[in-house]
Amino acid sequence: MKKLSIIKIGGNLIDNESLLNNFLNDFAQMDGLKILVHGGGKLATQLADKLGIKTEMHQGRRITSSENRDVVTMVYAGLINKKMVANLQAKNCNAVGLSGADANCILSQKRPVKSIDYGWVGDVEQINISFIKLMLENEFVPVFCAITHDGKRNLLNTNADTVAAELAMAMSKDFDTKLIYSLDKKGVLADVNDNNSTIKSINLEQYQALKLNGTINKGMLPKLENCFRALANNVSIVRIGDGDVLKEDSELFTSLIRK
Amino acid sequence: MKKLSIIKIGGNLIDNESLLNNFLNDFAQMDGLKILVHGGGKLATQLADKLGIKTEMHQGRRITSSENRDVVTMVYAGLINKKMVANLQAKNCNAVGLSGADANCILSQKRPVKSIDYGWVGDVEQINISFIKLMLENEFVPVFCAITHDGKRNLLNTNADTVAAELAMAMSKDFDTKLIYSLDKKGVLADVNDNNSTIKSINLEQYQALKLNGTINKGMLPKLENCFRALANNVSIVRIGDGDVLKEDSELFTSLIRK
Repeated sequence: MKKLSIIKIGGNLIDNESLLNNFLNDFAQMDGLKILVHGGGKLATQLADKLGIKTEMHQGRRITSSENRDVVTMVYAGLINKKMVANLQAKNCNAVGLSGADANCILSQKRPVKSIDYGWVGDVEQINISFIKLMLENEFVPVFCAITHDGKRNLLNTNADTVAAELAMAMSKDFDTKLIYSLDKKGVLADVNDNNSTIKSINLEQYQALKLNGTINKGMLPKLENCFRALANNVSIVRIGDGDVLKEDSELFTSLIRK
Repeated sequence: MKKLSIIKIGGNLIDNESLLNNFLNDFAQMDGLKILVHGGGKLATQLADKLGIKTEMHQGRRITSSENRDVVTMVYAGLINKKMVANLQAKNCNAVGLSGADANCILSQKRPVKSIDYGWVGDVEQINISFIKLMLENEFVPVFCAITHDGKRNLLNTNADTVAAELAMAMSKDFDTKLIYSLDKKGVLADVNDNNSTIKSINLEQYQALKLNGTINKGMLPKLENCFRALANNVSIVRIGDGDVLKEDSELFTSLIRK
């Protein structure tokens, strides 16, 4: 099977123009088949503020009213996605910017209302890989934002970490797939205040322990859930690191290990 | 050669949700290979107003400051494009939303500053049809907004009528190409105040006369320039009409004729 790298770039890297540009340099230079998935950064919240639209978060997830959905669609699928594509094209990387609605690549279900009504938030139901495969086979580089759709005209705001993991799981049927989460830290830290405290590897049992003792918490929890779910579903390698994790000779990152 | 229809939908149709939905119904049902190109409507100006960003127009073209470019990228490439794609997908039309930066499909040059500095406005230099052909061959339906790029990281705001005409000219090398401009009027009108005064056909000579006597003016002038340029460059059929122009049995529209 051919090797495929799926890289998710997080909000904090996107907000910093020079970090982002360095990251895109490294991404453009990576050999082999690759897909980029990006989150949104603070731009959507800033735009909502300017427009007087209230931003409400619950456990790090955006409660997405109709107005908020328009904002994230504009910022993620429009501004961030197309700026990245234009930047990658200038670096000779033949990027194609996509949402999950395009070619019906990512079909989601609007999250059912339980104790919280998340609004227009989607949970991934199905990845249709035919278009993605066609692109990879023809040397195009898909760049996904985390806007998906429900097949019934509705766009849905979807968690970018989950989109990356779901893409990796779906693609691993046809490709030897590596999933990389790239953030502004050198991996999962033993001490959140010490950027030199990267944990080199974590298996499922260690993850449970680190969760219990509070070392891993907040936003890192759902990210690691995605990592172990990907590993349990045939994704070969899962790593968390900063921009340098893309480099061949990179050494400092966290490897997630199946057993 | 296989037949290909390139349809450009104008601003006024986009602004009206029910007209737009009817149009997308007809577009989804069209047989054969097809590409949709859309303009922006009033949404970009409305968003700019809300954000306190000044909108300046010169002869119907937007003077595009950096801030204005962000606005049109968000609105055209994000909101309008992805909403259309999600709508078409719900109508079983396998749409893929694109800007000219994606797959380097449309390369433009920033308009040189002469008496007017248009800012980040692009004039189309080159259409790269390989990705577009790949999509058409695999039964995907490209949906282009009129944001292009210069290959040097810069997104450029580009006239959607021109994008449609340039796409039609480029594709006519490999396809028997029809170019249709769909607007909120039943074609070119002999009397702008009478929507029943559609001129059934106009050749180049007649166009010059209609231009001289003022029947054709304002925004219709550059549109017709694009039409005759397309006809002079191997595009087979060029029509201007309303949403009904897509229907097989449509009779009321303006045909542009080479000689």
